[in-house]
Amino acid sequence: MPSYTAPVRDTQFVLNHVVGLGNYANLPGFEAASSDLVEAILTEGGRFAGEVLAPLNRVGDEEGCTRHPDGTVTTPTGFKEAYRQFCEGGWTTLSAPEEFGGQGLPHVVSTAISEYVLSANQAFEMYNGLTAGAIASIVVKGSDEQKATYLPNMVAGRWTGTMNLTEPHCGTDLGLIKTKAEPNADGSYAISGTKIFISSGEHDLSDNIIHMVLAKIVGAPDTVKGISLFIVPKFLVNDDGSVGARNGLSCGSIEHKMGIHGNSTCVMNYDGAKGFLIGEAEKGLAAMFIMMNAARLGVGLQGLAQGEVAYQNAVAYAKDRRQGRALVPDQRDPNAKADTLFVHPDVRRMLMEAKAFNESARAFVLWGALQVDLSHKAGTEEERQTADDLISLLTPVIKGYLTDRGFEVAVMAQQVFGGHGYIREWGMEQFVRDARIAQIYEGTNGVQAMDLVGRKLAQNGGRAIRAYFELVGREIADAKAAGDPAGLAEPLEKALGHLQGATMWLAQNGMANPNNIGAGAYAYMQLMGVVTLGWMWLKMASASARLKDQAGEDRSFHENKLATARFYADREMAMAGALRRKVEAGADSLMALPVEAF
Amino acid sequence: MPSYTAPVRDTQFVLNHVVGLGNYANLPGFEAASSDLVEAILTEGGRFAGEVLAPLNRVGDEEGCTRHPDGTVTTPTGFKEAYRQFCEGGWTTLSAPEEFGGQGLPHVVSTAISEYVLSANQAFEMYNGLTAGAIASIVVKGSDEQKATYLPNMVAGRWTGTMNLTEPHCGTDLGLIKTKAEPNADGSYAISGTKIFISSGEHDLSDNIIHMVLAKIVGAPDTVKGISLFIVPKFLVNDDGSVGARNGLSCGSIEHKMGIHGNSTCVMNYDGAKGFLIGEAEKGLAAMFIMMNAARLGVGLQGLAQGEVAYQNAVAYAKDRRQGRALVPDQRDPNAKADTLFVHPDVRRMLMEAKAFNESARAFVLWGALQVDLSHKAGTEEERQTADDLISLLTPVIKGYLTDRGFEVAVMAQQVFGGHGYIREWGMEQFVRDARIAQIYEGTNGVQAMDLVGRKLAQNGGRAIRAYFELVGREIADAKAAGDPAGLAEPLEKALGHLQGATMWLAQNGMANPNNIGAGAYAYMQLMGVVTLGWMWLKMASASARLKDQAGEDRSFHENKLATARFYADREMAMAGALRRKVEAGADSLMALPVEAF
Repeated sequence: MPSYTAPVRDTQFVLNHVVGLGNYANLPGFEAASSDLVEAILTEGGRFAGEVLAPLNRVGDEEGCTRHPDGTVTTPTGFKEAYRQFCEGGWTTLSAPEEFGGQGLPHVVSTAISEYVLSANQAFEMYNGLTAGAIASIVVKGSDEQKATYLPNMVAGRWTGTMNLTEPHCGTDLGLIKTKAEPNADGSYAISGTKIFISSGEHDLSDNIIHMVLAKIVGAPDTVKGISLFIVPKFLVNDDGSVGARNGLSCGSIEHKMGIHGNSTCVMNYDGAKGFLIGEAEKGLAAMFIMMNAARLGVGLQGLAQGEVAYQNAVAYAKDRRQGRALVPDQRDPNAKADTLFVHPDVRRMLMEAKAFNESARAFVLWGALQVDLSHKAGTEEERQTADDLISLLTPVIKGYLTDRGFEVAVMAQQVFGGHGYIREWGMEQFVRDARIAQIYEGTNGVQAMDLVGRKLAQNGGRAIRAYFELVGREIADAKAAGDPAGLAEPLEKALGHLQGATMWLAQNGMANPNNIGAGAYAYMQLMGVVTLGWMWLKMASASARLKDQAGEDRSFHENKLATARFYADREMAMAGALRRKVEAGADSLMALPVEAF
Repeated sequence: MPSYTAPVRDTQFVLNHVVGLGNYANLPGFEAASSDLVEAILTEGGRFAGEVLAPLNRVGDEEGCTRHPDGTVTTPTGFKEAYRQFCEGGWTTLSAPEEFGGQGLPHVVSTAISEYVLSANQAFEMYNGLTAGAIASIVVKGSDEQKATYLPNMVAGRWTGTMNLTEPHCGTDLGLIKTKAEPNADGSYAISGTKIFISSGEHDLSDNIIHMVLAKIVGAPDTVKGISLFIVPKFLVNDDGSVGARNGLSCGSIEHKMGIHGNSTCVMNYDGAKGFLIGEAEKGLAAMFIMMNAARLGVGLQGLAQGEVAYQNAVAYAKDRRQGRALVPDQRDPNAKADTLFVHPDVRRMLMEAKAFNESARAFVLWGALQVDLSHKAGTEEERQTADDLISLLTPVIKGYLTDRGFEVAVMAQQVFGGHGYIREWGMEQFVRDARIAQIYEGTNGVQAMDLVGRKLAQNGGRAIRAYFELVGREIADAKAAGDPAGLAEPLEKALGHLQGATMWLAQNGMANPNNIGAGAYAYMQLMGVVTLGWMWLKMASASARLKDQAGEDRSFHENKLATARFYADREMAMAGALRRKVEAGADSLMALPVEAF
């Protein structure tokens, strides 16, 4: 059975020395996040994830969720008790607003904990993760009454939340949705329609489930501009805040999926259910995007999280399993008939690629979470704007690139096990199946690529991408001035040049033929991923070069960081030029064939 | 439910115009393989695969195989009847030797049919595929008596075969195997030990199962040099050829796997079972490699086969599903609220990558199968030698590269479905799970890469790789002389230059540090895959350019080939330079970290 140990030491390194949490101690929420408190949170959260949640991961996969004839759903054995402990431990409240019972800590701290929970048990985390998204949209768009009615119970985890977008005939293209909202006399709406793929749609973990549902009010435009967002609770809430009557909605069935079996993915039927408009009518998409952006960061984190846990188990196997002999005679173990897998360069390659990805992905996601914090809390409007620009630009890269690479890392880790990786009891194939969903939901990775290239690059006259280029360029210059300790500055500069070239190419060729944008979008997203993880390695290498000779520091930790940065420079940066060429190949040969030719 | 239509037209194009079956009509077996007969075989085989086997693919996945308390195993509903029809149709006999009841057709013809069967139902095909491997080793290494005893029933499919290599503690490193063979007085051996991951190890399809088992004769060296190969039938065979007493072996359990549930993957226990030495004692590995090389080609074919069927279903979905609008206004369907997925360049990208892979992989495998034929049947010793050199060199590329890319294609095809791709009932996730095993068994793809770089490149002073470079180089020159109709010759020449450069680098740097070989092996295999599929596109484009204006030819078929070749040139060839850089990055940063750092 696989195991999981939260990488607390590495998270601390990133928080303290890469994103530099200490530099923001003057900001609200950050002042409480002292290095000691954060260490205590990480340690305890890591322990809970490894000891309580990880052992339930395979149980969840094997048992799945069960829908009973009355429409109720039972989660896998142990989930309910674990969720109770999760709420009691305050893990749902970390970065929620204090006025609703949250701890008001920075988003970057709760993101670090979410990684651990996701590594331990992705299906379990999704009950909480969807709730966090729903909370975010109520905080921003809800009325004071709605906030008071829903948020305290949701923050405490007593009630959970969902996002209801997809319908049988539409997912990406929300303009096509058919779910209707008819005004009731009391100002509420009667919601009718069918939603599919609703994660955590029905289950036995919480006293109530607050569904956030996209629907069109009768008479609204039958396009994306006619969509409104509704709060549709499973149980209506009485005036005194207690759980009241059952609402007119139910789980019609549970989907049979490739993975994340421990999460109940439901078909939800709304049959005149009472719903409450949140925010303005026909502005539902904007309200939904608040949830969606939070969710996309969370999904990007899933890529890292599955990559990390799969890597850890591959390392353990490679240390234990003996097979074959080292190529270099003096690296052979004279006391055994075979050497551990670790001596084989191709096994090392897989483990190094995984390690180099996981550590830089962690830095990237935590850096991204800090931008979310800064976009709300930074001291000046300009700083808030820049942080918002950067995270808005990079959200599709976090979602798309990290889930693609996280899946590949899970596949590589499975590969280290040889035939045993294909056998269920080892648990490696579950990581692969669970990781796969993250490339699909919350907007497929192709949709992310189009969001990046078709929307984000051009927004505000390209302000965000210019800020990104300037920031990365400045840090390259700084690293060069400091002697380029990991040999990363030069290849990163070259890769950044490829990204800039590709950006220019898209700007120049997208007008003449918009299909050039679509044809290059995916490779562009990958290229930006390669550059950004390289940038993260530059940050980490610079920090480690600075720290390694300092008293009290673990010299070998920093030397290993520098060596891993060099590996990234040697191998992963090599892809940048090829990806640029794919972007610049344009749409001609891609779109040349008539549909009948397929 | 997914469907499958055998790509008969494309197979014929490859056979007639790319590998040029007609050029070998003077060779034994080929004289019978007229273009008309081959067309009839392909059409009927394709029909059988699509109509009989494909509908059982999901049944096999959902039901799996059942082991009963007495150790017998039942295959999924419908498999037994389909297998009966499969044998009756003569599909087991195509390229088997005529003296044992086979049809003696070229291997390249049976390979084409195997693709169809694998696309339709990989788990089903493995009952037959393992038998073919066992037949191959008995044909080459068996005594006349052994051939007479086993081959007629195996060729007819009445008896099936298995390969027994892996044990719980060893797979790749066969020197470690513990299964023992003790001589009996009658010249046979008593085989004792446990073998795992035995595909088709026990089932209800055939009257007998002929296990090919690696074991060490008592007293033999406890290394790879002490291994012998034994025929260990489930039922002993009476002198009159009838099935006799039950042998001392049994299926201990069925493995629970990620996929290929329809095939029974068994733990096999040998408890003094009667076994018959095949070939010389302590030369078992060489005998096993006859099976293994055949099996590796078959596994490479599985990559293509899963890629093809997944692609076909993604195409059907993309033609049907409407979501979003074309980026170019005049490509929008004015009669619908949304356009089909086909208008989106990023969906096209996935389908074009799949198409460009599948068609060139088909050409590569069939070209490879022809080399197997030529290595036995070509008119001169020199021709036989060259064919043997080439297929020996490229077998690891067929196995490793085609299964990696086939898996990626299956994942991409699943991605086209969005959320529906993750739901079991659509069947796309089964293709992904089934495709995954091909990267692992018959030697993991890392082992293939080491076989290529560590053994095959240097064999006979590099004779094979020189022949490959010369052959590809000559065809590039020919294409240039013909005006380079698909614009492929130049990028292919450049990519070939990268492969030659990487080969040189390995030769120069492998001596100083053997880990450089291991560190670059995987990227080298990928690079050779990119170049070889590019070479196949060159062959196909040259043929189509020649044919497209000829009377009786389907002009649009050839124009589509040329357009797909250009896509490959534009996009896939871009990877060659990056892969060379990965090879030349060497072992230093890859092996730098101490094991404790992981």
